Amino acid sequence: MKNVLLTIEYDGTDFSGWQRQPGKRTVQGELERVLSRLCRMDVKLSGTSRTDAGVHALGQRACFTGEFAIPIANIPRAASDLLAAGMGPYKTGDVRVTAAREMPLDFHARFDAKGKTYLYKIAFGDAPSVFARNYSYFLKARPDVELMRAAAGHIVGIHDFKCFEAAGGTPRETTVRTITALEIAEIDGGITLAVTGDGFLYNMVRIITGTLIDVGCGRIHPDAIPQIIASRDRQNAGHTAPPQGLYLAKIYFDSQQLKFPLRAENAVV
Amino acid sequence: MKNVLLTIEYDGTDFSGWQRQPGKRTVQGELERVLSRLCRMDVKLSGTSRTDAGVHALGQRACFTGEFAIPIANIPRAASDLLAAGMGPYKTGDVRVTAAREMPLDFHARFDAKGKTYLYKIAFGDAPSVFARNYSYFLKARPDVELMRAAAGHIVGIHDFKCFEAAGGTPRETTVRTITALEIAEIDGGITLAVTGDGFLYNMVRIITGTLIDVGCGRIHPDAIPQIIASRDRQNAGHTAPPQGLYLAKIYFDSQQLKFPLRAENAVV
Repeated sequence: MKNVLLTIEYDGTDFSGWQRQPGKRTVQGELERVLSRLCRMDVKLSGTSRTDAGVHALGQRACFTGEFAIPIANIPRAASDLLAAGMGPYKTGDVRVTAAREMPLDFHARFDAKGKTYLYKIAFGDAPSVFARNYSYFLKARPDVELMRAAAGHIVGIHDFKCFEAAGGTPRETTVRTITALEIAEIDGGITLAVTGDGFLYNMVRIITGTLIDVGCGRIHPDAIPQIIASRDRQNAGHTAPPQGLYLAKIYFDSQQLKFPLRAENAVV
Repeated sequence: MKNVLLTIEYDGTDFSGWQRQPGKRTVQGELERVLSRLCRMDVKLSGTSRTDAGVHALGQRACFTGEFAIPIANIPRAASDLLAAGMGPYKTGDVRVTAAREMPLDFHARFDAKGKTYLYKIAFGDAPSVFARNYSYFLKARPDVELMRAAAGHIVGIHDFKCFEAAGGTPRETTVRTITALEIAEIDGGITLAVTGDGFLYNMVRIITGTLIDVGCGRIHPDAIPQIIASRDRQNAGHTAPPQGLYLAKIYFDSQQLKFPLRAENAVV
């Protein structure tokens, strides 16, 4: 019996999100179909994060267990080739397995995750460029980044983040989470946010991003953030930024390693 | 009677090229469908360049004539909105009309074009990133840019470029063309070529790009280029670079203005 941990990159544009759903094209569904064929067994994946439709991933993680013949080192190439089949002559599909390693049998990609970093990309223009339309949130006006940073300073820390939770997610025991870093950088003429924390509520990064944009555009005062958090009321926070700007960037299995330097080479997609 | 010149941006990934074809989704076909509805007449477009399937455009141009009621200034927004219909909630499709202006009745977008600039994007990596797979040509090894520039120096000028013409294009009176500039820049960790000339043969930019890559990888000596051109034989040139790295960047109607500074802001897509 082996337990395999995969690292997965995907363009979420043409997927109905991560989670397997009957009759829909999902990342988990596509991966399970291909891995079941490679491993000649019924593969069931446990993913760390259930990303929504349109959300992208640079470093999703997922594990599966089983008895199978294919060497683990061959899985990334073999799975990626099968995933690219039918995707035209250039041999890359919209999901790719970038790494695979064997883990102890008691390791679990979701329960053992100690934190995650999400990136959110914002671009500017009268209309979205046809090339960036699925990969950034387009704004007509440029928000004030210093106001956004002042507001972000109130979000970093241990808080009950119920005000940043959308309805419709999995019920949670607690809405207290730790945001260890919230960086905002001006890169390539746009704005990229990097949010790192020990866990995230449903749509939390998209609501934090929308709230920070509302602060940067003068609709919310940065010093109102502590009251908004204290209210625990979603109505008091800002709008929900759309899914296509969001990237699941990195997952951490060691709580000492929660950091993601927001340099151009890490933020450019 | 009015004659309208449009500027058009498109992501060529999901199109069977520019030219209208029965039963296929083409850029010309989509634009004619939408413009016919807006103008309440049967619009026939004359495009400057017939780009192939998978090739992108930042500044394609096309004109049409007719009697219609919609103000020309309203065409870009109205056409782009119709083109985005059914493309999801974010209101941008994969083709967009970025400008429209009235021209004299004897103006023609193809016959009056004095030159064009194409960009070609090359990226590096063991496997294409899922995000760049449709927008760059991925190479595993990095070609020597100085060798490529030495070869490019032999291509700039007035030559019979039959060696860089693929079979299957429209028959031409002459295969002599003028390449006014061929710049090669290292941008964003990749290589971008900008090729400007008074006209291009079928697949000419893709064959020039493939030949320059073959030079940069040591398969062709840069000083062999003059003999390759003199041979007028496609067999002697290099491989054809794939369509997804190619962008029709700009079209010129004034032969004094053929220039395209290859700065990061012009080359990044």
